[in-house]
Amino acid sequence: MKHTLSILVENKPGVLARVSGLFSRRGFNIDSLAVGITENPEISRMTIVVEGDDRILEQVTKQLNKLVDVIKVSDIKPESSIDRELALIKVEAGPKERSEVMQIADIFRARIIDVGTRTLVIEITGDVSKINAMTDLLRRFGIKEMVRTGKVSMLRGAKAVKEE
Amino acid sequence: MKHTLSILVENKPGVLARVSGLFSRRGFNIDSLAVGITENPEISRMTIVVEGDDRILEQVTKQLNKLVDVIKVSDIKPESSIDRELALIKVEAGPKERSEVMQIADIFRARIIDVGTRTLVIEITGDVSKINAMTDLLRRFGIKEMVRTGKVSMLRGAKAVKEE
Repeated sequence: MKHTLSILVENKPGVLARVSGLFSRRGFNIDSLAVGITENPEISRMTIVVEGDDRILEQVTKQLNKLVDVIKVSDIKPESSIDRELALIKVEAGPKERSEVMQIADIFRARIIDVGTRTLVIEITGDVSKINAMTDLLRRFGIKEMVRTGKVSMLRGAKAVKEE
Repeated sequence: MKHTLSILVENKPGVLARVSGLFSRRGFNIDSLAVGITENPEISRMTIVVEGDDRILEQVTKQLNKLVDVIKVSDIKPESSIDRELALIKVEAGPKERSEVMQIADIFRARIIDVGTRTLVIEITGDVSKINAMTDLLRRFGIKEMVRTGKVSMLRGAKAVKEE
């Protein structure tokens, strides 16, 4: 089963290596990882998507909690959260294909953020399935490059994963 | 100086730990990191923002290139790239504050993606300074939680950071 962990950590060198080391020693492959700043410049938040045995993941979570620089670990359940990912997609599209690609982008509420003579760059946000659906449609034009951020998650409503 | 590295790696357990270990052993703090899938399911792309001495970073880049699971490393220059980050921001806003917060979101072309009785969740994409500008405006309502993906970058025009 896939799990999404939201981990608050001290913003210090080596934290990322220690956290990712814990997963790799247990043979967990990290599907996606996003590390960004929070409202507090001394604290960063990692959002990690991993797939693996639930019992072993529980052990990993306990070990994460023991690391000095780890402040909080939460396993975010999909039914109570909002999930988003950002993708930049460079599509091969000259003047002839441009309008059709723009139409597809429009339907997915995506944005064109760069135009070249033979390419367009599209910015899309959404859950993984929405991004995959648009990518599938664009494939026949030719996808020159795709950069994705990995998923971030937030609990719906007033609850928050916070340090206190 | 800040650098943005775009690194193509084999999608295998342990790669992230080895890459992040290289940075931490040299005392580099990673500002942000985004790891996502590419068009090829066997290859992931890491976008790393680091600040530090240019000469040491060059050495780190050479060492990265020597790791078996690293396919390509590119130092992406800001003047020739498009940079984007995704942030989810949970703002304290009841019925009275809601319309003002929605107005601010609108100006920044951000989207409201969840509404609670006392909170709103805003999704925004943009470069770091745009996200910071909106965050600054929202602070007086109270920011309950912020999750950011870290920056991703893509070269403008037809060029791509590719495996071949």
